[in-house]
Parts: sequence; structure tokens; C-alpha cells
Amino acid sequence: MTMIEKAQVTVKKERREELIDELVARQRRFHSLPGDLPADEAAHVRRSALEEIAGTSLHHTGSFSLDAERASRRNCENFIGAAQVPVGVIGPLRLNGQYVDGDVYVPMATTEAALVASTNRGCAAIREAGGATVRVEEAGMTRAPAFRTSGIEETQRFLAWIRQHEDDIRAITDATSRYLKLLDIRPSAIGTSVFLRFRFDCGDAMGMNMATIACDKVVREYIEPETGIACIALSGNFCVDKKPAQINFQEGRGKRVFAEVELEAAILKKYLKTSARHLVEAQYRKNLMGSIAAGSMGHNAHIANVLSAVFIATGQDPAHVVEGSLGVTCIEPHGPEGVYASVYLPDLPVGAIGGGTDLATQHEALHLLGIRPDPERPGAAARRLAEIIGGAVLAGELSLMAAFTSNDLARAHERLGRGKLPPGTDPSV
Amino acid sequence: MTMIEKAQVTVKKERREELIDELVARQRRFHSLPGDLPADEAAHVRRSALEEIAGTSLHHTGSFSLDAERASRRNCENFIGAAQVPVGVIGPLRLNGQYVDGDVYVPMATTEAALVASTNRGCAAIREAGGATVRVEEAGMTRAPAFRTSGIEETQRFLAWIRQHEDDIRAITDATSRYLKLLDIRPSAIGTSVFLRFRFDCGDAMGMNMATIACDKVVREYIEPETGIACIALSGNFCVDKKPAQINFQEGRGKRVFAEVELEAAILKKYLKTSARHLVEAQYRKNLMGSIAAGSMGHNAHIANVLSAVFIATGQDPAHVVEGSLGVTCIEPHGPEGVYASVYLPDLPVGAIGGGTDLATQHEALHLLGIRPDPERPGAAARRLAEIIGGAVLAGELSLMAAFTSNDLARAHERLGRGKLPPGTDPSV
Amino acid sequence: MTMIEKAQVTVKKERREELIDELVARQRRFHSLPGDLPADEAAHVRRSALEEIAGTSLHHTGSFSLDAERASRRNCENFIGAAQVPVGVIGPLRLNGQYVDGDVYVPMATTEAALVASTNRGCAAIREAGGATVRVEEAGMTRAPAFRTSGIEETQRFLAWIRQHEDDIRAITDATSRYLKLLDIRPSAIGTSVFLRFRFDCGDAMGMNMATIACDKVVREYIEPETGIACIALSGNFCVDKKPAQINFQEGRGKRVFAEVELEAAILKKYLKTSARHLVEAQYRKNLMGSIAAGSMGHNAHIANVLSAVFIATGQDPAHVVEGSLGVTCIEPHGPEGVYASVYLPDLPVGAIGGGTDLATQHEALHLLGIRPDPERPGAAARRLAEIIGGAVLAGELSLMAAFTSNDLARAHERLGRGKLPPGTDPSV
Amino acid sequence: MTMIEKAQVTVKKERREELIDELVARQRRFHSLPGDLPADEAAHVRRSALEEIAGTSLHHTGSFSLDAERASRRNCENFIGAAQVPVGVIGPLRLNGQYVDGDVYVPMATTEAALVASTNRGCAAIREAGGATVRVEEAGMTRAPAFRTSGIEETQRFLAWIRQHEDDIRAITDATSRYLKLLDIRPSAIGTSVFLRFRFDCGDAMGMNMATIACDKVVREYIEPETGIACIALSGNFCVDKKPAQINFQEGRGKRVFAEVELEAAILKKYLKTSARHLVEAQYRKNLMGSIAAGSMGHNAHIANVLSAVFIATGQDPAHVVEGSLGVTCIEPHGPEGVYASVYLPDLPVGAIGGGTDLATQHEALHLLGIRPDPERPGAAARRLAEIIGGAVLAGELSLMAAFTSNDLARAHERLGRGKLPPGTDPSV
Repeated sequence: MTMIEKAQVTVKKERREELIDELVARQRRFHSLPGDLPADEAAHVRRSALEEIAGTSLHHTGSFSLDAERASRRNCENFIGAAQVPVGVIGPLRLNGQYVDGDVYVPMATTEAALVASTNRGCAAIREAGGATVRVEEAGMTRAPAFRTSGIEETQRFLAWIRQHEDDIRAITDATSRYLKLLDIRPSAIGTSVFLRFRFDCGDAMGMNMATIACDKVVREYIEPETGIACIALSGNFCVDKKPAQINFQEGRGKRVFAEVELEAAILKKYLKTSARHLVEAQYRKNLMGSIAAGSMGHNAHIANVLSAVFIATGQDPAHVVEGSLGVTCIEPHGPEGVYASVYLPDLPVGAIGGGTDLATQHEALHLLGIRPDPERPGAAARRLAEIIGGAVLAGELSLMAAFTSNDLARAHERLGRGKLPPGTDPSV
Repeated sequence: MTMIEKAQVTVKKERREELIDELVARQRRFHSLPGDLPADEAAHVRRSALEEIAGTSLHHTGSFSLDAERASRRNCENFIGAAQVPVGVIGPLRLNGQYVDGDVYVPMATTEAALVASTNRGCAAIREAGGATVRVEEAGMTRAPAFRTSGIEETQRFLAWIRQHEDDIRAITDATSRYLKLLDIRPSAIGTSVFLRFRFDCGDAMGMNMATIACDKVVREYIEPETGIACIALSGNFCVDKKPAQINFQEGRGKRVFAEVELEAAILKKYLKTSARHLVEAQYRKNLMGSIAAGSMGHNAHIANVLSAVFIATGQDPAHVVEGSLGVTCIEPHGPEGVYASVYLPDLPVGAIGGGTDLATQHEALHLLGIRPDPERPGAAARRLAEIIGGAVLAGELSLMAAFTSNDLARAHERLGRGKLPPGTDPSV
Repeated sequence: MTMIEKAQVTVKKERREELIDELVARQRRFHSLPGDLPADEAAHVRRSALEEIAGTSLHHTGSFSLDAERASRRNCENFIGAAQVPVGVIGPLRLNGQYVDGDVYVPMATTEAALVASTNRGCAAIREAGGATVRVEEAGMTRAPAFRTSGIEETQRFLAWIRQHEDDIRAITDATSRYLKLLDIRPSAIGTSVFLRFRFDCGDAMGMNMATIACDKVVREYIEPETGIACIALSGNFCVDKKPAQINFQEGRGKRVFAEVELEAAILKKYLKTSARHLVEAQYRKNLMGSIAAGSMGHNAHIANVLSAVFIATGQDPAHVVEGSLGVTCIEPHGPEGVYASVYLPDLPVGAIGGGTDLATQHEALHLLGIRPDPERPGAAARRLAEIIGGAVLAGELSLMAAFTSNDLARAHERLGRGKLPPGTDPSV
Repeated sequence: MTMIEKAQVTVKKERREELIDELVARQRRFHSLPGDLPADEAAHVRRSALEEIAGTSLHHTGSFSLDAERASRRNCENFIGAAQVPVGVIGPLRLNGQYVDGDVYVPMATTEAALVASTNRGCAAIREAGGATVRVEEAGMTRAPAFRTSGIEETQRFLAWIRQHEDDIRAITDATSRYLKLLDIRPSAIGTSVFLRFRFDCGDAMGMNMATIACDKVVREYIEPETGIACIALSGNFCVDKKPAQINFQEGRGKRVFAEVELEAAILKKYLKTSARHLVEAQYRKNLMGSIAAGSMGHNAHIANVLSAVFIATGQDPAHVVEGSLGVTCIEPHGPEGVYASVYLPDLPVGAIGGGTDLATQHEALHLLGIRPDPERPGAAARRLAEIIGGAVLAGELSLMAAFTSNDLARAHERLGRGKLPPGTDPSV
């Protein structure tokens, strides 16, 4: 488990010192190190320069086991090392889905005290109830270029042309990747601005890059030359990537995920220290009325917390948590003193390949979840991840909502955040 | 730079094997390891069990240099190791602010190809323009408990009582931490639900936990007993934490940050490969009309990307990126063929202490930014971080908007994301 | 032009006095007058009772020429008379549309000083520019019943059944009126709530009632009995009728209308006392940035004003102005010192038959606009009305935006609202 | 009750014919009739010309009893007559408020069948329950000019200046009317755009014009000259007038109104043909979940309907219904099988003087409601109107929500809208 710093042996010390000096003196830019410098070594040189400039140590940043060569090429320019984010595990989380059926342990990368413990408590309740039902639908990855027309009539002709040539357009987009399939094109026109929201099935990839490349191809090589209508921005914010937007809530984006569970009174009491009446009232006043009072697009307790933790652990794009937070949590009375609880995540962009999924620890996290993309079943791995996330989010919602009813939110933060509990113990359950 | 695994020597191998077996056989829960087990060792035991259960390796997850003892107590229960997120550096970013004045290098933890390179290009343009002006205002960390009344008249009496006892309330909240100061209480009442949005200055902490603890104290020990009005949820979603909500956009939350720069035609051309006319049109069709068409709360290109990268690198709560994405980017014609560009971040919760800021790599990242909390100047360190983030976000917006105008968004993704460029080179500038 | 009060002669005075006394003494309810009492007479009796109860006169309320019999049966229960709303006329408004081509004079019922004069000024500018281009699309009238299921799996079966039986559903809905055609059904499911948004073409009717009746029929007689899934509310607020909602902005409702015009510098100066530069800046700071700052769903100056005036004059449902206000106004630089201006009204529910369109003055207003429904061309009359409204709204936007740039908004209100100008004069143009 | 057409006798027939011919031939504009022409006569001339141009009759439009002279000067330019909107009455509506205490009959001007009958039914239930509790708060009429600065630093200086000179600003605004009082100024700044949201108490006036005039005065004569900062639009859409906007929902505008009632099972059954269980479920699925699914800003059944009917009857600005529709309706279980029901109207701009309130029928409607402005108690009359509207809206919500639960929405529309019931009868109760 020792970190091997190959770089240190491949470059002569003098050369290294020289490069560091040049960076410090601003005679050289951080992204202009010699192309033949190994990535580890380049990172070391950059760190050393920064240490000198800022008068600080970057020792830990330089302590990593990921493949620097690959990361600096595929994930992160001006690479200097890695941030270490603590990972905890929850589970087993019992799920009844189409892509996951059984128990999983879910890794969460977080720095927020009590989050893992709390979500884990939700898993216990779900497990005792026989598991959560989870389902995923393909909402599709979207990209919406913005075009400029001269007004209504040209817009109408342009949109008619698009409709008439949808097959040709599809032929071009779908040729850019064997995993990308154009699902449809949704137009919107206001004044002289026209947006075409391309929606793609991207298999096991989250797909934002594939969608961008496909749109670029068809826009630059076919739509613009054939129609003479100029594309002003390949992303016209009608996509909508990483902004909270109603079009995403209404139409979905990435995966659309549903998760639900029914909990009896005994389970509520034993595992969540609460009752149906209390949970339902907290749901009503917080997730419904409070969200309405706030003009919120998210009607939930803390979906973003669970999402960001699983996203970072599994190499998803953490900026996509913005979209995931649009979710809706329901808690309704069910049976004698029990509840029905659900989460609805209409906009969950996730992938099992590409992005950060190939990085060392992220790859391990996906394996831990049983996620191994299979070219024979494109999309199944990403859907499995989506179903698991749906279940984890449900666990997180249940536990936090229950915490409100037993007044222990602040206390958990106080104990855990300030480190008053001995390691290895967990206040929940 | 070797990883020291202290745990391996402190516990007898037999004991370890036994615990692993118990976890695998579900005779023991992952959070119920013996309290005297060192954190490193507990993590190792959990990883070993998971490796056996899932038939996979967690080697890299176990390769970390952070203080496991501390992380497992303060940041992450059921600790098993660390996720390694690649870190790149941008800069120097030249800023003219009240808490930062001069050049800084900003670490970004990301797995998204081209993000660091692109933001770095924005820094170059800003630097050549003499730097960005940045300002921060204290919007205040908020927490809004939800109460239940019997209706209008009781609500009116309750709110009158709150107004009359604001000094007493402040005395109680402010006694919970010497860094917390109650700024004001904003009520909202709908039907039988009443929300009190407490707003605090939390010094150098992001403050969500401090605010929660202060609210818990005053609600449970003073407001509820004195008024007889029940608090149903300590967080009533009128706070609003980690959901996109208009109350946050209108009132602000955490820090309210402004950043701006004026760029002449020559700089636009040399550093951003664009012109004022193109940038302004892309701004109009994408950030304004496209966002309007989408029903978006965020009128910007990709604020969430830069935020999440700096947040992860510096130990901020990545789920708060949801709030940060509410920002507004402006690009306006300015002078002969130049532009004025700005970002407005009304809802940026950041801190220089607490949360993930004390973790090994995160702490280094803060030091790199010159962020060292000073008890004599509470709040100054967090505000410096906020100003720097404002500048980095501006750099990111400029570069991506310029990329749209020169059609190179997709191409950058194609080259960088697929790893076609040699390490150490950077396509920008 | 004398008002004939037929009622006064048909009922004996004693009988009338007796009924009035009973109403005043609360021995009889206002809606329980004898069924054989003519509507005029019933109105008179109610007015007399109210006059006595409130100690006030309702003389003017009783001065009307509309058909009381018909109005009290079809439009307004407990009928007591009519509100008189002043009507002014604007025009000629020159329009180049598919359903209107040429000049029209548009009646506006309003009590807001300066509104007619200002909109009329906009007409002059449009006319001089050769007219506005207008287009209408059938967005469809919608009604979305809310259903209750037991959760995900039942919802999926329910929605599959709906998809499989769409033809049968259509057969039932379309049999309820020969003018109603089901276009499609859009589902939405959150937790145990399922919404089916039925979208209909309703010919020349605005269609809310037709849609409701068709939904009632198919839900009660087919969907509920066949699936066993209970409909909880025939309108589930996913329709969305008379509330500002993103689903309507995204999907449209009623008619989707586009109107635009290009104005040269000379026209801007002569008719609107402004310049392109000033108009474009006002558009940017008010309709775009101001609306964004406000969290507004309407990006326009005052679409609701023109809509409500034309709606009341022509017998449309004034509560639908809520939906119409979602519109977006654009003003862009165009040619040398000119502008392109447009309005986009995605959610304009209007009809040429039904509702208030058959009332005396409303009917005249429609005739003045050349709107005479033709069973051979169902829908054409309503679309003509929609195109005209689009043009009138554009005129209103242009004039008010121009007023801001010449600082004369307040002055117009001051002069006109306070009655300082002699009748017959008009400050505009 | 005869209509007197004074105009017809004051102008010589030849002169009239001549003017009509000029209008028809477009040798004269409709707003350019001789200044000494009496308003009645001018209206007649315009109608005659329009009748000739459009080949239609405007007989009913010319049948009115309002004061044409006054209306054409103060309410409606290019005056041609009046639209007659049927008025029905509901009540008695029993209210327990601060400005109304007891029973009132409320006039509603509407063309929507079943609306009056349905709202009346709600009144019966409220009356039997002892009346609704109503309260009004002064949210204040707002106007927000938009200014242009050069960026952050100038904006900060500008806002500091505004804060420092608030007393001087108040002295100027408050001198423009003895009924206007500046409450406060709320700033918002994005990029180079700055908005100052002035909030005024306008006594018994709705106040939009008073606020505009006051802002114009202080901006043109004080703020602009003293600061050198240009006002780009006197209304910067951060006001926000007649658009659905979150700032209004959060901050309120005009009056903020609360109304509530508790209904026992017997009343629910007898008067509303429903039960608590059914009402509460319809509330949950429609007003809460359906509105959430739709991305709606209005969480209610049909507030806009009742508002528009009372607004037109009483001379309010019907375009303000857009703002009123932002309201929230609550229905909660209460006691054994009963419910608590409430409406919250944060944005209700109404007045008892000015606007259309002085017109003949509108004035009568206000008198019927006991609304007579008293200079000794400025604001009390407008607040009485607001409280009454709150009660009427509550009645409307209750009845429609109940109708959903008994499946009689469509049937009521069918019967009433198609005129199948004899006059004088009412299907409700």
C-alpha cells in the first residue's frame, strides 16, 4: 500500500530544479512544462513551485495512488496531485429493482459528519421492511444549441426543415459513437432565438461529452451549411446542464429514478425512533409548505447530500448534483400507523464509463456496487447505478426526516461534527 | 511520501480476521466495530470485509495519507478510506478585492477534462486586463425551523412574541459559540405553518452546524417552553439548505459575491480567441434567452463546474454547489470592441474552518490560497475564500463563453476527454 | 338605445315587494327566487333587497341592455345586473397573419388611464412599419385529472394501460363534442400521485369546459371502472388553469402566439419618441435583468394590461390573463439604428364561441374584429382572435418600453389618470 | 333607468356626419376628434365610424349609464362606450376581521357559469361555521426603477448614498401626495444594473400611479442629478407589476391577506357534500403535488376566478389578478372529521379610491360592500376590501375543492354553462 513515486527517479534533479525555478519566476507557465515530462514528475515540479510561491506544503496533495499519466490526460490539466475525500460505507441497502436486486454496500465520499451514519440508519429501516422498490427510466442526455434566425417566418422554415431531415440528422449524430442514439429533438423559439434540444441515449456513459460531440458534428457539418442558420452557442442553456431548471424537472435529464418503501409502525419506532404521525407532519410542514414558502424547486430534505457523496465516490460529475436536487420526497400515511415513502429524481445524470469512473478509487467504488459495464447490455450498468442511488437517497431522506421528529438533528451534528464520539461507534440505530 | 499504516501493527492479525468474518457473516454491523479499534485498523477491517463480500479490491481506497482517526470522528462514519480526486491548478489569478489583493493559484479537484485548462485560460485574460474586481458581502448562514400554530391569531401572537423577545433569543443563540452572531429573524406564515428564518454571522465557519445548534438551543429551551408553540422540524426548508430556492436568490445565503472585469478587444482576441460582438451575442442567446426558455434559476454558463472543483479541493460541502449555481453572469459591450463581464453569486456558503477544511489535502489547498483563519479577524479568511472563488468563477465563465463563439467546446472535450493530448500540454492560450 | 325593463311589467308589484322582504329578512336565499320569475325581474328583486340591506343604490348596476335571461342562465347565477367597463378603441392595427391580414380596430375594456392611448401609439408605429407579422399555433386546451395509485408498480401498469388504450380513450372524449379532438395525453407521476394531462383541440371554443366534460366522461365511465385507479380530482393542477406554471410556459396552453415587427430609426423617433439604443437598453435592464432579479416568470413590460382589456371587451375569461402574462418580449438592434421587436405568448387561452362571447357588447366587439365563427372552418375564428391579440400586445409593449426611455410614464399617468386633459385629445403621437 | 344620450342633442347632425366620414376615410385619427366635442358625442361618432368600417352594430356598446366625460378623461382614451359584464351576488359572507366584522354581500362580475353559485355555496358553509377569520397586512405598493452604473464600486457608492439620503428621498416622495408614505427601499444589483424597490403605503389607493409619480419625482429631480447615475427605466421589473414573480411572493405587494375557517363534519356534509378525508386528499394531490409537478407558483384551486370577478365588479385593475394568483390554499384535518382551511394572498393590490373605483357601477359595488373611504382613517377602506376579498376567495376555494371530491365539477359546468337550468335556481346547497 506504499505510494510509488516513479517520477522522482526518471528526471534528473537539476532539470527539475530548473523547471521549478522557471515556474516560480513566471518564466514558464504551469501548463507549459516539457511534453516528455512524465505526469508524476510534472505534478511534482508544479507542487514544488507552488510550495515555494505560497510558502506552504503540498505533501498530502502529492500522496496519491491514482494513475497520474491517465488523470492528467483525461481528467485534469495542470495536474498537481489528488484531493483525499474520506469515504464511508452504508448498507447493506436492500433493493428490488430491474437492474439491482438484492443487497449492496454503498460508498459515500463526504466530509459532513453524521451523513454516513444517518443514511446507514435509513438503510436499516429499508432492509427490515424488505427493501425499497426502485425503477429507472431513460430520460436521455440533452444538449441544446442556440441558433439565430431573422424572425418568425425563417424560424418556421428552419423548424420544418429540421423535422423533415430528422433521419439524416440522426444518421450523423449516431455515427459519432456506437453507444449514442438520438431519441428526439425538441425545439423552442423566442424572438430570433431558436433552441434545438437534442436528446440522446448514451448507453453506459453519462453522455454529456458524447452529446456535445454529436451536436457539434451535425450542427457544423450539416445543419448550418444546409440551412444557412447560424449556431451561436453549441450549448444554449435549454439543455440544461448543471443549472436548476424547470425544463429538466418537466422533461427529465439523464436518468429518471423512482424509489419507494412502506414502513410499519414497529420499524419506524425501532430503527427511526419516530412514528407515522410525526413523520407525515414533518413532511407536510418542511418538504411541502416550507419548500413552497421558499420558492424552492426541490421538495426534499437533503437529496443533494447523498447524491454528492455517492457522486464523488463513484467518479460522477459533482456539478450534476445541482440537477439531482430537483427531486421530490413523499411521505404519506400507510396502513395502521405506517408510512409510504418515496423519492422522485427526474434529473439524475450518471454514467458507468467515462468521466471520473476510470480513476483508481472511483473504479473500485463502482466495482463494490457490482457495476461492470457490459458491451452486450449497453446502459445496464449506468441504470444499475441510478437505481442504487435512488435507494440510497431514499434512505437518506427517511433518516433525516425522522431525525427532525425526534429532535436529534442538532445533537447528531454536535456529537459527530465536533468529534465527541469514539471512532467506530455510530449513534444511529 | 510513504503511507504509514499504523493500524496494521496495533491489532493482532487473528482479531482482525475474526472481525472481518463477523462483518461478512452479518453477525456484526459495519458501525459496530470495537470502540478501541484504531480508525486505520477499523477502515482496514471494513475494506477487507467489503472486498470479500463484493469480490473486488479496495486497494486504492485504502491508500491515503489523511488522519483516519480524525476523519472518522469528525467527517465520515463507517470510514473505509479516501476517494482520490485529481487536482489541477489555475493561475495566477489576479484579484483586486477587500480580502485578497494580488495573485493566487487556485487548486481545482475535478475529473472533467478541459475544465482546468479552460478556467486557466480565463485567468490569463483577467490577468492581462489588470485583474478582476471582487467583493463579498455577508449574507449570513440561515436555519429556519418550522412551527405549528392553530391559525392566524395564534400566529400573530407568536410572531409578536418573537419580535418582543429578539434580544433574549439573541442572547441564547450567541452563547452557543463565540463566533456566531444572530443577525435577524425573518418570519413566514402560511396557514398553520410558521417559519422563522434565523440568519447568523458565523465568522470563518460556513456555519450550517453552528446555526443548527444555536437554533436547537433557543427553540427547545426557550421558544417552545415559553410560547407553547411546537417546533415540527428544526429545518423547515425555508432556510434553504442545498435546494435551489428563490428565497436564497433574493435574500442571499452564506456569502454574496460580486466579480467583474473589463476586457479590451486585443485581450479578447489573444487570450480568448473571440470578439466582443460574438461574446455578447452568445451571452444574450444562451445565458439570457436560453435560461428563460428553460425556466432556469441559473443564468450562467457553468458556475457549478468551477464551484464544485474548488469546493472539493478546499473541503467545502459539495452539496452547496446547488445553491451556488443560482448565479448570474453578465457580458456587456464596453468601450470600443471590448466587454464588461461579471458574475453575481448571491448564495455561496463557504468556510475556512470546520467541515472538511481540516483534512490533509484540503488544508493544504486553503494554505495555497493564503487562507489561514485569524481569531483576531473572524470571518476574514472565509471572505477571502469567497472573493477568490468569485474570481475563479468569472474566469471559468469567460473562457467557456468564448469557447462557444469559436466553436471549440466540443473539440476541447474530444481532445482532452479522450486523452489525445500528451501530458503537460494545454490547448488553451 | 333605451333600456327596456321587461321584468317590471310582468310581475305584480305586491309579489315583488313580498320577495324583497323575504330576502331582506333572510327568509329566502338569493338563489331561491321562484323559478318562473323572469331573469330581469329576479335581478330587480335582488337589487332592491340589496339596496335596502346595504342602504345604497344599485341604479347603474341595473342599467344594462344585455339579455338577462341568457346571462343568468349561462354566465352568472344570482344575477343582479351588469358592471359597465369603459371601452376604448385602438387602431388601425396592421397585421400580416394567417388568420388576419390587414387592418383592424381593437376594442379594449379598461379603467386604467393611458393604456388605450399608449397601445394606440404602438399601433401607429407598427402600421407605419408595414404591419406586424403574427402567427398562431394550437397548443391545445388541457385538463389533468389526479389519480391515486399504490406506488411505482401500479403506476407503471396504469400508464401502460393508458398508452395501450389511447384510441379508446379518444373515441370517448371526442364523442362528447363534435368540436373537441384529443391531441395527446402527457403523464406525470410522483409518489402515489399520477397526473394525466389531456390536451384537446377545441375548435373555436376556448375549451376549458369542453375539456372538463370530456375528461369527466372518460375518467368516470372508462378509466376508473376499467383500471380500478381512483381519480381524486378531475383537475389536478397539472393542467394548469389560471395559475402561473412552468408546464404551461414549456408546453403551451390554448394558443401559442408569435408577433414581431421591425422598426426603423425614423419610425422610432416620430411615433415612439425614442431610439434603438435606448429601447434596447431598457429591454435589457428591465425585461431581462429586472425580471431575472425578481424571479419573474414573465419577461415583458405589461402584457397583462393589454390582455385583460381585450379579454374583458371580447368576453374571454379574465382569469386567464394569469397565464398570458408568462409571455416574453424581445427588442434587439436591427439594421442601422432600428430594432426588431417581438412578443411570444405561449399560453393564451381564447375562444370565439362560448363563455362570455355571446353577451351583447362582447359579441359586438368580436364582430368589430371580424370574428364570426364558421362551422366549416372550426378554429379559424379563435385563431384570428389570437393573432389580433398578439399584435395588440406587441403594440402595447413597444409603446410602454418607449415611454420609459423618454421618461414619460409617470407624466402620462399624472395627466391622464388625474383627468387633466380635455376629452377627445390623446397625448400620444 | 333610461339611458340618456346627452351627446345626441348637443352636436349638429351635419357636423357629426362629417367627423364620421373623416374617421372612416382615415383623414382623421380616432383620438383627434375636436376637443370641445362632448365625450358622449365623441363616443357616438367613433362608434358610428367603426360600425361603417366593420359593417357591424355597436348598439349595446353604446348603451351605458356611466359618466362618459369622466370615464374618457380618467379611465379610457378613444372612448366608445362600455362593456357590460354580468354581475351576480354571493352572501351573506360572514367575516371576523379587523376592518370587516359581520355579514356582507359580495358582487362578482363574471361570464363563467357556476362561479357565482359555487362561491355562494362556500359562503353558506363559512356562515354556518360562524364566519371566516380574516386579516390584512400592509405589504406596500412598490415601484423599482432600474439604474445603470459602471460596475461594483460605483454600485456600492450609489447604494451607500441612497442609504445615507433616505430621509431626503422620503421627504420628496411623500410630498407628492398626502396619502403616500415611503416605507423602505430594497436594492438589488447584478452586473451594471441596479434596482431600487421603493415600497409605499398609499392609503386607500391601490397606489401604482401614486408610486410611479413619487418615484419619477425623486429619481428625476434628486437621485439622478445628485449621483449622476442614470435611470434607464422607471419600472425595472423588480417591482413587479402584473407579472408572476417570486420577489412579490416573498415580500408581498399591495395587501397581504390571510383568511381561514374551521369546518365540522356536519357542515362539510350538508353544505359542501364532502368529508374531511376527501377534501384533505384532494388538497394534497391537487394543490400540493399537482402544483409541484407543474412547476406552479400558485398552490390553489382557482383564486384567480374569484379575484377577477370581484376586481371587475369593484373597479380594481384586472391585470393585477396575475399577482393575486400566487396565493396558497391549505386544507388540513382538524378535530374529529373536520377541516381547517385557509388562503394566503401575499400579493393583493387593491384600492378604494382611484382607478376604476369611481365609475358608476363599480362605485355602487363598493358601497354594497360598505366601502366608503374616510380621510380620517386612510387605508381602512382598502383594507376592508382586502379582507372581504380574502373571505370570498376562501369561499371559492372550499366550494371548488369540495366539488372535485363529489365529482360534480364537470356536471355543474355542463348544466350551467349550457344553460339547462331555469333562471333563479341554483344547483348548490
